[in-house]
Amino acid sequence: MTNGNTERETLLRMKIAAVNPADREAMMRAEKRQAELAKPPGSLGKLEDISIRIAGITGNLHNRMESRRVLVFAADNGVWEEGVSSAPQSVTMAQTVNLTRGLTGCGTLCRHFGVDLEVWDVGVKLPYLCEAVIDRRIARGTANLYREPAMTREQALCAILTGIEAAEKAKSDGVDILGIGEMGIGNTTTSAAVLAVLTGTDAAAVTGRGGGLTDSAFARKMEVIDGAIARHRPDPADPVDVLTKVGGFDLAAMCGAFLGAAACRIPVVVDGFISVVAALCAVRLCPAAKDYLIPSHRSYEKGFVLAERELGLEAYLDLGMRLGEGSGCPIAFEVVSAACAVLDRMATFEEAEINDDYLTEIRAGDSFTVTT
Amino acid sequence: MTNGNTERETLLRMKIAAVNPADREAMMRAEKRQAELAKPPGSLGKLEDISIRIAGITGNLHNRMESRRVLVFAADNGVWEEGVSSAPQSVTMAQTVNLTRGLTGCGTLCRHFGVDLEVWDVGVKLPYLCEAVIDRRIARGTANLYREPAMTREQALCAILTGIEAAEKAKSDGVDILGIGEMGIGNTTTSAAVLAVLTGTDAAAVTGRGGGLTDSAFARKMEVIDGAIARHRPDPADPVDVLTKVGGFDLAAMCGAFLGAAACRIPVVVDGFISVVAALCAVRLCPAAKDYLIPSHRSYEKGFVLAERELGLEAYLDLGMRLGEGSGCPIAFEVVSAACAVLDRMATFEEAEINDDYLTEIRAGDSFTVTT
Repeated sequence: MTNGNTERETLLRMKIAAVNPADREAMMRAEKRQAELAKPPGSLGKLEDISIRIAGITGNLHNRMESRRVLVFAADNGVWEEGVSSAPQSVTMAQTVNLTRGLTGCGTLCRHFGVDLEVWDVGVKLPYLCEAVIDRRIARGTANLYREPAMTREQALCAILTGIEAAEKAKSDGVDILGIGEMGIGNTTTSAAVLAVLTGTDAAAVTGRGGGLTDSAFARKMEVIDGAIARHRPDPADPVDVLTKVGGFDLAAMCGAFLGAAACRIPVVVDGFISVVAALCAVRLCPAAKDYLIPSHRSYEKGFVLAERELGLEAYLDLGMRLGEGSGCPIAFEVVSAACAVLDRMATFEEAEINDDYLTEIRAGDSFTVTT
Repeated sequence: MTNGNTERETLLRMKIAAVNPADREAMMRAEKRQAELAKPPGSLGKLEDISIRIAGITGNLHNRMESRRVLVFAADNGVWEEGVSSAPQSVTMAQTVNLTRGLTGCGTLCRHFGVDLEVWDVGVKLPYLCEAVIDRRIARGTANLYREPAMTREQALCAILTGIEAAEKAKSDGVDILGIGEMGIGNTTTSAAVLAVLTGTDAAAVTGRGGGLTDSAFARKMEVIDGAIARHRPDPADPVDVLTKVGGFDLAAMCGAFLGAAACRIPVVVDGFISVVAALCAVRLCPAAKDYLIPSHRSYEKGFVLAERELGLEAYLDLGMRLGEGSGCPIAFEVVSAACAVLDRMATFEEAEINDDYLTEIRAGDSFTVTT
């Protein structure tokens, strides 16, 4: 971080310093046990990788992902004014409320899978009253980043610290695994801009059509992204500066939630384009945070693969979903819990009694009785 | 079918005639409801497709996939003698038993997800005693298909009818969704041979390394497949002939299970290479059976994509699993149940109250209260 002597800068620095890398020794034990399980080596593919990663995060071989939570950060983005989205800004507010009522896609999936859904308002523009939303509104939406920086540095820090707070609350609530989602009309624009800066590319390399754009709106979106970057020249080495100038409150809070999850040693699912960009911000601020990230659903937004590659993640759900909200997380949680079940409960070659002696005996053609 | 006047030929013909296509009217109603749900059209991707497909299968819009079963068909393949597999034949027997004990990969995942696992022995070579296995052994493994036809036509019919019986049992047990798996050392060879004949290709187009093969064993595997096809000249228009000459008891029984599921209107998950080839046999025998197939996990066996394309299926799990046994099914069942939950419980635009009037009101900036 460059300009950093305020209280929030210091606090963020402390939070980042609290992140430790994954427990390599636990990962080695998990890897060893996977090799002993009664199956061809590697035949459970990513379930094996995930189980090893989770062991590294918790420090234990045996994990149950019982308490699951999706954190949704909601905020509006001033850049909406530039015509970069096909939806009105009012959708952010309406869906923020609907998420808590279990009516949206992610809300329905969370209810179905028994996943807790917590909605944090970090900057929705329109007024509303809904007690189920946690109100940490930093402002009524960001400024229009095409004209001026999206927010002040202090606001960016505040949003990041709010995300960390949400992860810390999850820890104290006994949550075993987190997923990070969002609701914010215009946030594929902010995400593409942040990703372009962090990877040294431009709008053409990272911009997709978001919720659905006409050709001219899509061209405008790229013009806005490249224009904003040229105007504000965010420092790629300072993710807080990037979020300040071309990010959003939702994106910054999500970045904080990834950092907080890492500090609290909670596995955290990266789901979708905005989520993966927020995770990349977190890892640029704190490389050790990478160890806590769990992939989920493949996004078809153009920059997704670029961000995923930067993070060394590989999505394994290919459901063609493009709803946002972290809607892939509830399904990803099932995959992670399956991965843990395999490591926890599948028999080793020894337990399955198909060691060499046993095979020799069987090869001889003897009859053989098993009591089940 | 070509040569068909035996009792079993007649019975199979009757079972096939009992398969009706999916209920198009129910599918249209499901599609209409999906379009009314409060989300951008198509944004739940394959979850939408699956929910529509399930509606067509059951004839209802509201479905709960509560009772779930994986059927595993176990058998040995005489072609093993040719050195086409890296594992000893004894593994078929040992894993058949271990599946019922919940010790294998698929067994562990079934226990974890509360899925019923039913193992049918249709031709394991080695003797064993295990009451939990349903014994319908047709013979102690097939003949070596490189030297002679794998089985007689009557044996193939018997295996297919056994698979149909397994699906009918599932129906009378109240099963909502089935998955079809297998255990049979050597069955990537039989599957590749059957697929090559059905698609008019050759070993090079469809053969993979199965559980793991050296270069020379892999070359031998292809030589065996092409040689067997050249020697026996199975009739591509007669799937029973193809199964008889270059198939296996496991593959034939799986084909029957797909047919039986279709006749009983039970959605049935196709998981893995052997499963997709068996499903292709079923659809070649009975095109209407296609409507009952639900995709699952992507297999990296070479012929998988070819078979998938023939069936118009698209896998959505990409976990790099290559264990067989139908081990992707328990996870696929979660995806299918999520798809049904969305159609069943997600709010329509009207229910979510974000219709045009409401948006106008919000655009005007009025404060707005929601009680949750």
